[in-house]
Amino acid sequence: MINQRIELLRQWMRKKGIDAFITPSTDPHSGEYVPDHWKGREWITGFTGSAGTAVVTMDAALLWTDNRYFIQAEKQLEGSEYKLMKIGLETTPSIPEWLAYNLQPGMKLGFDGWCYTIDEYYDLKEALEPNGIIVEAQTDPYDEIWSDRPAIPVNPIEIHPIEFAGETATSKIERIREQLKNFGVGAIVISMLDEVAWTLNLRGTDVQCNPVFVSYLVVTKHDAILFVNPQKANDDVVDYLKSQGVTMKDYNELSSYLASQNCDFLLQPEKTNFNIQAAITQGNVLYKPCPVSTMKIMKNEAEIRGYHSAMLKDGIAMVKWMRWALQAIPQGNQTELSLEHKLTSLRAEQPLFRGISFDTIMGYGYHGAIVHYEPTEETDIPVEDHGLLLVDSGGQYTDGTTDITRTIPLGNLTYEERRDYTLVLRGFINLARAVFPRGTYGTQLDALAREPMWKYGINYLHGTGHGVGSYLNVHEGPHQFRMNYMPTPLVPGMTITVEPGIYIEGSHGVRHENTTLVVNARLKSHHDDTMPLPDDEGPGATAQGLTFGPYYQFEQLTLFPILTKVMTENKFKGEPVVIKEMMTEEEITWFNQYQQMVYQRLAPHLDQDDSQWLLEATKPI
Amino acid sequence: MINQRIELLRQWMRKKGIDAFITPSTDPHSGEYVPDHWKGREWITGFTGSAGTAVVTMDAALLWTDNRYFIQAEKQLEGSEYKLMKIGLETTPSIPEWLAYNLQPGMKLGFDGWCYTIDEYYDLKEALEPNGIIVEAQTDPYDEIWSDRPAIPVNPIEIHPIEFAGETATSKIERIREQLKNFGVGAIVISMLDEVAWTLNLRGTDVQCNPVFVSYLVVTKHDAILFVNPQKANDDVVDYLKSQGVTMKDYNELSSYLASQNCDFLLQPEKTNFNIQAAITQGNVLYKPCPVSTMKIMKNEAEIRGYHSAMLKDGIAMVKWMRWALQAIPQGNQTELSLEHKLTSLRAEQPLFRGISFDTIMGYGYHGAIVHYEPTEETDIPVEDHGLLLVDSGGQYTDGTTDITRTIPLGNLTYEERRDYTLVLRGFINLARAVFPRGTYGTQLDALAREPMWKYGINYLHGTGHGVGSYLNVHEGPHQFRMNYMPTPLVPGMTITVEPGIYIEGSHGVRHENTTLVVNARLKSHHDDTMPLPDDEGPGATAQGLTFGPYYQFEQLTLFPILTKVMTENKFKGEPVVIKEMMTEEEITWFNQYQQMVYQRLAPHLDQDDSQWLLEATKPI
Repeated sequence: MINQRIELLRQWMRKKGIDAFITPSTDPHSGEYVPDHWKGREWITGFTGSAGTAVVTMDAALLWTDNRYFIQAEKQLEGSEYKLMKIGLETTPSIPEWLAYNLQPGMKLGFDGWCYTIDEYYDLKEALEPNGIIVEAQTDPYDEIWSDRPAIPVNPIEIHPIEFAGETATSKIERIREQLKNFGVGAIVISMLDEVAWTLNLRGTDVQCNPVFVSYLVVTKHDAILFVNPQKANDDVVDYLKSQGVTMKDYNELSSYLASQNCDFLLQPEKTNFNIQAAITQGNVLYKPCPVSTMKIMKNEAEIRGYHSAMLKDGIAMVKWMRWALQAIPQGNQTELSLEHKLTSLRAEQPLFRGISFDTIMGYGYHGAIVHYEPTEETDIPVEDHGLLLVDSGGQYTDGTTDITRTIPLGNLTYEERRDYTLVLRGFINLARAVFPRGTYGTQLDALAREPMWKYGINYLHGTGHGVGSYLNVHEGPHQFRMNYMPTPLVPGMTITVEPGIYIEGSHGVRHENTTLVVNARLKSHHDDTMPLPDDEGPGATAQGLTFGPYYQFEQLTLFPILTKVMTENKFKGEPVVIKEMMTEEEITWFNQYQQMVYQRLAPHLDQDDSQWLLEATKPI
Repeated sequence: MINQRIELLRQWMRKKGIDAFITPSTDPHSGEYVPDHWKGREWITGFTGSAGTAVVTMDAALLWTDNRYFIQAEKQLEGSEYKLMKIGLETTPSIPEWLAYNLQPGMKLGFDGWCYTIDEYYDLKEALEPNGIIVEAQTDPYDEIWSDRPAIPVNPIEIHPIEFAGETATSKIERIREQLKNFGVGAIVISMLDEVAWTLNLRGTDVQCNPVFVSYLVVTKHDAILFVNPQKANDDVVDYLKSQGVTMKDYNELSSYLASQNCDFLLQPEKTNFNIQAAITQGNVLYKPCPVSTMKIMKNEAEIRGYHSAMLKDGIAMVKWMRWALQAIPQGNQTELSLEHKLTSLRAEQPLFRGISFDTIMGYGYHGAIVHYEPTEETDIPVEDHGLLLVDSGGQYTDGTTDITRTIPLGNLTYEERRDYTLVLRGFINLARAVFPRGTYGTQLDALAREPMWKYGINYLHGTGHGVGSYLNVHEGPHQFRMNYMPTPLVPGMTITVEPGIYIEGSHGVRHENTTLVVNARLKSHHDDTMPLPDDEGPGATAQGLTFGPYYQFEQLTLFPILTKVMTENKFKGEPVVIKEMMTEEEITWFNQYQQMVYQRLAPHLDQDDSQWLLEATKPI
């Protein structure tokens, strides 16, 4: 079947005079989750992983993917013409390298201009044009060859109430216009769906877990135009948009509208698709980060109030679930999927719940070592009353988005499990209690979470934290904790998760995660002295961007204890988990205070039994 | 007098048809210390600080400098035409900004092409050409207008013995040629003096504290040519160079030689002067970091052996000096300068001592808060037997270069002094005992040294560490500990200092510094598991360049205790300094082990009294 599809694509390519066609896994809005309509790469390859790029020529078909997906891709490509190209192996050429080597001068490489960013286009062009290979945007082939292609979603748009948004769309649009003025341009195309939703205080259900809707927003000096399928907006939404000074045009009219404008445009080249730039023919294009991406991550008072409310509800749901799970698991018949369904149903009982914020990770035992494991009917296993259960989950509530990971000690732990649990806890605490001056970015702090485990020769290959949207995408950048360079300074009002982990393949996984808010620091004491900028110690020395203050720290938004002992209703109950001797006094003090705070905030909202359980769970170590 | 000099420069400018001339504080070799010959900026302004740039037009004269030098510059510019431009103030335009605003289209800006890097030239050009201002390299005006200009040094060159260098010049040149081949170029111009000295295993005394000599080295596929004043090389050096396949040409013949070559050249644009690029007319220029800069920082076995030997001698000298100082200071009559002279004389007694490796910082009391304070006849103050004395010093020995800072508690300390001493010690220990995986760079680890003081709202505005040459420059890059992005990974064989500090203006300064060597880590336990590359948590997530090992740590090369109590021979003797309650058990354990190691290594080389003193000084806390 896949080979027949490849043949359909080749027929289309011949018609268009194209020698190679590249299909990435992205959509026109550079989102993390892609609506089914844009899953052309999945359709043409049969490979269902989230990351992969297909290249089809007249005599070859290849799929590039990374080592998360080697096994899955090998299985899913079996029987097809596809050759698997394993990214990261020394013998694997990059896509531009392969194309440069295998295409002849004069040949033409095509891509869908809607599903390829400006940056990606120029990367290809730079690599291939010197070899005489033509790189050219095409129409979307899947419109013609994918007969039962799902439509672009037409789910209704909803208004996000001002009591939760905290700022009107009019005000946000005005702030965007100020930025355009600063940059000396007349207009901007906003194509990231969460940026459109945030700006207009609208939400949708077009994308899995992300409460956004398919659209573009153009803001000019005098106009704000939402390009969206009009079926999605009921009268209330139409009236609301009018009240905010926003007009509507059809989603498909973007290109012709852009072509008609003679002002300069601001575009973010790594997030904006190629066709948008191509449509701007009269004015110039200025490449800059979209100002909305930085406006959106600075939470206002209403949004912060919303996080506090959502975290309280999330904590209550987690207490109910955990107490239930610790009784249910020893009785047998629980699996990863059954536990996940129960957790989601308990979250759903909470007011303003709108859905989960990402696919729940419920990994028991060796499944916990697969970092983004999501149980399915095929992979589901029974959860027994021993070992570790890693649970990474979150909810979308109208007042806020949550993201929490806890690793539940079910009993009879090995020394290694206890040690890893403690090392992750130490890293978690070290970063969660960090204090840092203005100008500090996540790359500089990331090592605080890793250093305790590095001393044991253990590391994890994911970031230590990401921003969390306000009833928006659970992954929000650009600020992050990373080993890679990511120089966005952390400032008050930003949310960020703290989530170190240890993953022992075939055995167990541990991760502890809180969502936090950057706030002004309470310092242990204070110096008001202004300091001279000192001479520096070496080549290239400057003190760029550094100051002596103010200082910031992280407020823990997540309200749920990290268990220090086994609380399963079985014979292991009371078994110690955290190895206190491995921790410093400072770490223990901070941790006990956190647990105490969780109890004080949650207990008034719990019934007698839950409250009693929480008291036990938050006892100081 | 300065105004007369400005007039001389203007006459020269009129003759050349130049409307503005820019004089930086650098020389043709982009070194940290500049021989007097190239101190044109000092001559034309009267300002003696190490960093500053003069701009002279027909009706204005300006000096840009940073806030280390505001007071000094104001004093030294008094009575001259110069206007002080304070870098870092919001109201201060940058040099290109000022030039763009004050020069008219068609006007010409001149600079000495030997004393301006390729990067600096293009920065100016980018800013000024759009305004119609011509940026043009000139000959050196100071050759004509500075009548008593010092000559370029002609000090003799010496051969650095192979037993200390560990690798022949021939072998190093072959390795450079391999790199040229990899980059597809035919030749390289090496203009950094320490890179020339390292490559050829030669040393000199042309530059203060840096054992280098003024020269250029060109390496081609078949030739290696040292451009140097022939007076500097005696017969032994000439024979030696011949034996290594190196020919000599006069220092002034570089341009004509480059113009005659028709191969492609590799140049490092931020370190290479403009005239070198301008002279290359037949071949292309490839911009890349000079391969020598990375070869040089990976110390070989002989060099590491040399560091161990040099550090032992340095520790012995420090013990003798400290014991003497702690007796001499209470007797009165000691000043910063007298203590400095004694320290240098004790170092000079050690075998293979060649000089100090940088100007000694001997800062008593409030002078300790001036980060790069160097006592002079004008600033010298008596050192009394109370408070803190900050001593940052080092030696050049034929077998190695040392760099050590200790802050000596003389007695009657305030709580703040003790607290700052302890916070710096904690930061020092946290970084010195760090363990980290391959691929980690200094920016990621820097926060480990700062976090303890950040919690008190205290910071320091200098890097936390720099590389140290092997009987070469005490500041060696590009690897460093910095808050700024500096992505050179730390790998075994690199030296790097660990030197956090706290500076309280008008009161006191604390810094603890060791020189260390990156080595393979001794892990607390070990995982051989290979881990999957996990899915990542957010936008832009990749795990580029990260691996699970091997792991590295720092071997402490410096052998001298950090005092934990007052040891002055006065009534304060025995007074505690380190506040043990502020430290973690882990920190205390590591620190006691370090002190113990210092005793074990040094004691066998000390006389009875010194040894007894060291035993007391290294007692566990």
